[in-house]
Amino acid sequence: MAQLDPQQVLDAYIAAVYAKDVEAFVDLYDDQVSVFDMWGEWTYQGVEAWRGMVTGWFGSLGNERVRVEMQDVQTVLTDQLALIHATVTYSGLSAEGVKLRSMQNRLTLVCQPKNGGWKIIHEHSSAPADLTTSKVILQR
Amino acid sequence: MAQLDPQQVLDAYIAAVYAKDVEAFVDLYDDQVSVFDMWGEWTYQGVEAWRGMVTGWFGSLGNERVRVEMQDVQTVLTDQLALIHATVTYSGLSAEGVKLRSMQNRLTLVCQPKNGGWKIIHEHSSAPADLTTSKVILQR
Repeated sequence: MAQLDPQQVLDAYIAAVYAKDVEAFVDLYDDQVSVFDMWGEWTYQGVEAWRGMVTGWFGSLGNERVRVEMQDVQTVLTDQLALIHATVTYSGLSAEGVKLRSMQNRLTLVCQPKNGGWKIIHEHSSAPADLTTSKVILQR
Repeated sequence: MAQLDPQQVLDAYIAAVYAKDVEAFVDLYDDQVSVFDMWGEWTYQGVEAWRGMVTGWFGSLGNERVRVEMQDVQTVLTDQLALIHATVTYSGLSAEGVKLRSMQNRLTLVCQPKNGGWKIIHEHSSAPADLTTSKVILQR
């Protein structure tokens, strides 16, 4: 099995979100994925739970789109397991492409070869919380 | 290199926190570790930055101690890289051992063999944020 091409995973994530393509998004993940997501839920266990999150997210966007940019990307690649972590900027765009708002998350992805391709088996996204207010800090 | 024993890493983490032993805690981490921590900072890059966090944490405890418990532990182990993720309960104990408060985090650890032993090369801890208040939810 060839090593993971991390840029390919990140580009596919960016493209699926921009296209609001649930199937392309879900296809990045293993059936048994466990996700520690930024918002609301403690854990999404399995790709069907995760599909529910992304279906709701994309469905809530109306005629807006989300542009994703990856910064501070670091990777550790082996034949059997791969780590990617990054700072992600999510920008909400109007139907005309005007930037309406943006926020940043810290993203950790762990990928494993499955049936001849690499799949995300664990994702953890978050922003640090302010010790005084307990509110998350959404800009680096 | 033998595969990682995840229980050994978790037990060593629990023991170092309970003992407030900065050196034992820091020894779990690689020099080049990158940490996405729950509180305050976007990233700790390198073990010296992380030593600063833990020195401040343990130093702030006075005569209290912190008991750590790991639940929902899942692991993916290979010869070259290992993933551990869990729900962590941190309980503040009085000098007499009485539980004063507790909170839960989601914890991701990625470990790599370094100089004959396994070290944590990436850590991500967080709690999910409430979409309405932006406050973190500190109980599963």
